[in-house]
Amino acid sequence: MTTAVRTMQAFVLKGIGNVGVIEKPIPTCGPNDAIVKTTASLICSSDVHNAKGVIPFPPNRALGHESVGTVWELGSEVSGFAIGERVLVNAITPCFQCESCQRGFTSQCQGMLGGYKYGPVKDGNLAEFFHVNNAQGNLVHIPNSVPDEMAVYACDMLSTGFVGAEHADIRIGDVVAIFAQGPVGLCATIGAKLRGAGRIITVESDPKRQELSRRFGADDVVDFRTGDPVAQILDLTRGTGVDSAIEALGAPATFEGCVRVTKPGGTISNIGYHGEIAEPLRIPLAEFGFGMSDKTIRTGLCPGGSERMERILRLLETGKVDPTPMTTHRMPFAEVERAFRLMQTKADGCIKPLLIY
Amino acid sequence: MTTAVRTMQAFVLKGIGNVGVIEKPIPTCGPNDAIVKTTASLICSSDVHNAKGVIPFPPNRALGHESVGTVWELGSEVSGFAIGERVLVNAITPCFQCESCQRGFTSQCQGMLGGYKYGPVKDGNLAEFFHVNNAQGNLVHIPNSVPDEMAVYACDMLSTGFVGAEHADIRIGDVVAIFAQGPVGLCATIGAKLRGAGRIITVESDPKRQELSRRFGADDVVDFRTGDPVAQILDLTRGTGVDSAIEALGAPATFEGCVRVTKPGGTISNIGYHGEIAEPLRIPLAEFGFGMSDKTIRTGLCPGGSERMERILRLLETGKVDPTPMTTHRMPFAEVERAFRLMQTKADGCIKPLLIY
Amino acid sequence: MTTAVRTMQAFVLKGIGNVGVIEKPIPTCGPNDAIVKTTASLICSSDVHNAKGVIPFPPNRALGHESVGTVWELGSEVSGFAIGERVLVNAITPCFQCESCQRGFTSQCQGMLGGYKYGPVKDGNLAEFFHVNNAQGNLVHIPNSVPDEMAVYACDMLSTGFVGAEHADIRIGDVVAIFAQGPVGLCATIGAKLRGAGRIITVESDPKRQELSRRFGADDVVDFRTGDPVAQILDLTRGTGVDSAIEALGAPATFEGCVRVTKPGGTISNIGYHGEIAEPLRIPLAEFGFGMSDKTIRTGLCPGGSERMERILRLLETGKVDPTPMTTHRMPFAEVERAFRLMQTKADGCIKPLLIY
Amino acid sequence: MTTAVRTMQAFVLKGIGNVGVIEKPIPTCGPNDAIVKTTASLICSSDVHNAKGVIPFPPNRALGHESVGTVWELGSEVSGFAIGERVLVNAITPCFQCESCQRGFTSQCQGMLGGYKYGPVKDGNLAEFFHVNNAQGNLVHIPNSVPDEMAVYACDMLSTGFVGAEHADIRIGDVVAIFAQGPVGLCATIGAKLRGAGRIITVESDPKRQELSRRFGADDVVDFRTGDPVAQILDLTRGTGVDSAIEALGAPATFEGCVRVTKPGGTISNIGYHGEIAEPLRIPLAEFGFGMSDKTIRTGLCPGGSERMERILRLLETGKVDPTPMTTHRMPFAEVERAFRLMQTKADGCIKPLLIY
Repeated sequence: MTTAVRTMQAFVLKGIGNVGVIEKPIPTCGPNDAIVKTTASLICSSDVHNAKGVIPFPPNRALGHESVGTVWELGSEVSGFAIGERVLVNAITPCFQCESCQRGFTSQCQGMLGGYKYGPVKDGNLAEFFHVNNAQGNLVHIPNSVPDEMAVYACDMLSTGFVGAEHADIRIGDVVAIFAQGPVGLCATIGAKLRGAGRIITVESDPKRQELSRRFGADDVVDFRTGDPVAQILDLTRGTGVDSAIEALGAPATFEGCVRVTKPGGTISNIGYHGEIAEPLRIPLAEFGFGMSDKTIRTGLCPGGSERMERILRLLETGKVDPTPMTTHRMPFAEVERAFRLMQTKADGCIKPLLIY
Repeated sequence: MTTAVRTMQAFVLKGIGNVGVIEKPIPTCGPNDAIVKTTASLICSSDVHNAKGVIPFPPNRALGHESVGTVWELGSEVSGFAIGERVLVNAITPCFQCESCQRGFTSQCQGMLGGYKYGPVKDGNLAEFFHVNNAQGNLVHIPNSVPDEMAVYACDMLSTGFVGAEHADIRIGDVVAIFAQGPVGLCATIGAKLRGAGRIITVESDPKRQELSRRFGADDVVDFRTGDPVAQILDLTRGTGVDSAIEALGAPATFEGCVRVTKPGGTISNIGYHGEIAEPLRIPLAEFGFGMSDKTIRTGLCPGGSERMERILRLLETGKVDPTPMTTHRMPFAEVERAFRLMQTKADGCIKPLLIY
Repeated sequence: MTTAVRTMQAFVLKGIGNVGVIEKPIPTCGPNDAIVKTTASLICSSDVHNAKGVIPFPPNRALGHESVGTVWELGSEVSGFAIGERVLVNAITPCFQCESCQRGFTSQCQGMLGGYKYGPVKDGNLAEFFHVNNAQGNLVHIPNSVPDEMAVYACDMLSTGFVGAEHADIRIGDVVAIFAQGPVGLCATIGAKLRGAGRIITVESDPKRQELSRRFGADDVVDFRTGDPVAQILDLTRGTGVDSAIEALGAPATFEGCVRVTKPGGTISNIGYHGEIAEPLRIPLAEFGFGMSDKTIRTGLCPGGSERMERILRLLETGKVDPTPMTTHRMPFAEVERAFRLMQTKADGCIKPLLIY
Repeated sequence: MTTAVRTMQAFVLKGIGNVGVIEKPIPTCGPNDAIVKTTASLICSSDVHNAKGVIPFPPNRALGHESVGTVWELGSEVSGFAIGERVLVNAITPCFQCESCQRGFTSQCQGMLGGYKYGPVKDGNLAEFFHVNNAQGNLVHIPNSVPDEMAVYACDMLSTGFVGAEHADIRIGDVVAIFAQGPVGLCATIGAKLRGAGRIITVESDPKRQELSRRFGADDVVDFRTGDPVAQILDLTRGTGVDSAIEALGAPATFEGCVRVTKPGGTISNIGYHGEIAEPLRIPLAEFGFGMSDKTIRTGLCPGGSERMERILRLLETGKVDPTPMTTHRMPFAEVERAFRLMQTKADGCIKPLLIY
């Protein structure tokens, strides 16, 4: 029944630094797969990183990993879904059966960061159609009351921000610092509030992001342009520091800052991607108690899977979380390159550009 | 300097079922102790239980364990506090040094439920002054911006309700059921929301409590007078049940209900006191997977200690939690017996009566 | 290449209480499946339970869930295995992709106890060949140095006993009680020792099992025929009780005993199957602190999956665990009915009868 | 009753690099304190570090923190102990009541590494008598069957080594690498075996320590003098790496090695003291998944407290652990300086020198 349509438009990386829309074949569907017809996508700063060649891609590989759509085709072994149903697929699409997945580290499916297949392993989903491996565990229905443009935030932003908060081991009433309030950092702020933080201190200098930060849960917003954020956070906490710090930028300085502001016994949760600056991360010795501070450093990559997606969608459905104020721009898929440039330059106050198909 | 005052008014249990105010000596202060001059108290349903003789008390033992006040006297070994400072003391006052405390179970200090000393071990604090053992770890400053009548909810209600939610192992977006919305159940609702529950289903029939339940975070309120709450909860969740269920009443039927509505792999968190009905709790076999369902049953008693109290006070200070809508009645300490009767009868829509000294 | 062989011998439940060997078709292999040619099996007491009709089986359903063998056939989507390789498959064969599996509760795959498919869902593996669903995650290679008759203990006994110990939350040096030293209880003893228990107290009256219990790690063996085991355990611990208690029998009395001997704050871990005695489990109130003792009750069903199997096989490979002293009888598959009767009657000191194909 | 004795011999740090025995007053005993008469001590490599001035000590501060003895004097508020009883005190003596202690981080009592009081805060216990703060929680009885020279290993070596294993989050059957097999690393090997590791790979070049390493649980011992230990460990694990790595040396290279050999999702547990080499620790980017590998880094300092000590003593009492093969030298306290020099130079195959008083 799907044989009539054979090709699709896709936004690809032609070569390093060279992006554009080309025509590609619609992906084919194996017994455990699904093909989704895209209805909405968000551009991610990872797409910008990838266009720089941070991870080696073959020519004309489609970019993108934040898309929702409707079921177009289903493999013979996939049940519980029907053609045409609205579905969400996370940026990470694990196999669920390898050693790493069985240990619970689905983002590390079949090897380091191996759950991240859209781009590194196969075409991404800034395209009219996209392929879903292991669809039985990766497809999830979108509730009727949740529009595509809201659901699409679960693909990466909310799952990544939330895992930043989850890995921070926040107890009810804890003090939490979050370094950087880009889209992932803002979602970590939502996540920290969801875990019951007593006080949330964020680091951000852009006024619009500062305002969203407060709206999403920050009690204090520290501007790094008006002084060392570490000193400011220690000052706000009378020198005791925070229970947990979340790194949501991906820079050695903020990583070190997280170690410095965290109390002995506290947790540093990293969700920033440190692939842009090619130098080892450094841990300051004294603030690390020379390796004996009882501080913990945790790391992670956007967890996927339908079970987690259902939980995130539930928060959207019951109105407890609304990420859509982050959507600063909205345009048809035909303008995907403009959306990409906005993300690249952060021009015009861009936080997240949304594409409608 | 405190020698002039020698006696105080205290609300005591003269004998089973016989309560009243009498004059008692102000407690004396050892090297690790403090004496607090009471400024505000709440009556607890445990006081009503205790008046029935559930736990054997010596004659004229003062009732009460939810009080705040100012420091009146400090033992020689206690530092960091000064006479006259506003302080909070939890209902549970552990020693912090016994085997049980060192394992992290401070409520079981020196033996089963042994952290609960106000009443079973020494005079309670429905009195003009009260004694604080191990004051170094049990006293906590009340922030200036938090009034006594708000802070006093941390003594028992918030700490107990929150531990109900904490023991429920709630993940972001989970579905949680809470059986009964008395003051502890209402605080468990606040706690479940603080932990990021995606959907909160409470069981309550009283309209005023139903309304507070929604205000504090319930998405659905099930009325047990209109049908079996287990069936209603299964219906609301399309037969799958909830991730976690919190028992906040203390009755065999609600305990069983919690087991029944919880998914395989889910958690039942008990905070209700099952000392009123003298029959063993029962676990229904089939819903327990004949002991193989991967369900977990957890129990607990209001955790104390200054560190936890600071975290709870922080939530009040930053405005994230406001328990004061539960205060249905307010009167001077002289009317403590009237307050006790209100708690006993639940007349006049009583949820929590507050006493001011 | 496997087309020549079409039927096999299988040990089936013809009807309640009526077992025997019949000829059945060799199972067919879907794209995600494998077919294994059996080389060794153990009889389980669950087979005896099932023959009584505890779980409804269709007529002529093969019994058995503890078997190893060689790969006979592989589905098109299964990689990393080759025909003829020695493989192990756990008694529990989850799909890894449903909501329950993604939450980590693979034994509850697709519903309560749903990971247990050999028998309730399809033919068991007391047969010359058996089917493996979701083979990618359920097949595991057996190391060369581990013989079949040792590896086969990982299918159920070691995984179940170990989860009993894992759920008991044993800390280094803890005191652990284990009620009953049948094969599962004995494996829980091995597991408790593996987790670093400081003292292991087991309850058993059979001299041979007592001896194995000591050999596997018990410091004290309590004989319930010489006095109430609860009293004996409290006596051995000077009245303080144990940190963790493991129920490995499946009876209300031992379950209650576990609650009674466990310290406040301790953990009761259930691995016994309570489907034989049709009455609710009871929790004694006082020893449960009226629901406030900080005691935890955990339950579980033999976790499967190749990742766990690899870890258990590693312990056999490095010589840290040797379960084979539990093999009291060894015979060819042709004598499977005799083996079953031995398990049923526990005659001749039977602990585990091994079948060789 | 103890008034006749006023002074004692103590092994002190006179000034940087200048150690020796001097006469000092016996410490005095406050209401929460105890004074212990020393019977046996071990020299620690931290004593050697401290003599170099790593932490600023006032002149003539006694060294040492691994000693056992008998109760000499008890504060008025300390109960459950009697003069003359054999007792153990951990190197770390927390207050149990500060914010950090209540959070469970007793080693960080009142601030970073603040539980470590013998030396930094008060006289150490390489002396005929020593002071115990917060004695109620820090004193523990030594069982009759455990000799002083065995018990003394619980003061630091076993507690530190074990926390290295505990923080490594070892599951039954896991593969664990331990970098360096000095006394702490050897105790981490014992600890890894106690937690049920399936395979333990240690890194050590000294033949005597290699042999002890195998005796205590190592399956493979890698000699860093015959090749890069990271490459050797990856080779031994067919390139997959280990589940957990324990740093037991305190050097940037071994710390980095731990990050490199650990699988995605695995845990690096640091117990080495990184105060000797004054450069920040570095985390290699690619092996850290650019901050997204799901790897966790944990740190810690020898946990103290009587509850933990009781658990460690239980393992000695039931014969499950015997650390005494590490005692390479034994001499009277009069020869403490010779013992110190042995520890300093590691001459004569010195692992741990024992002093008898």
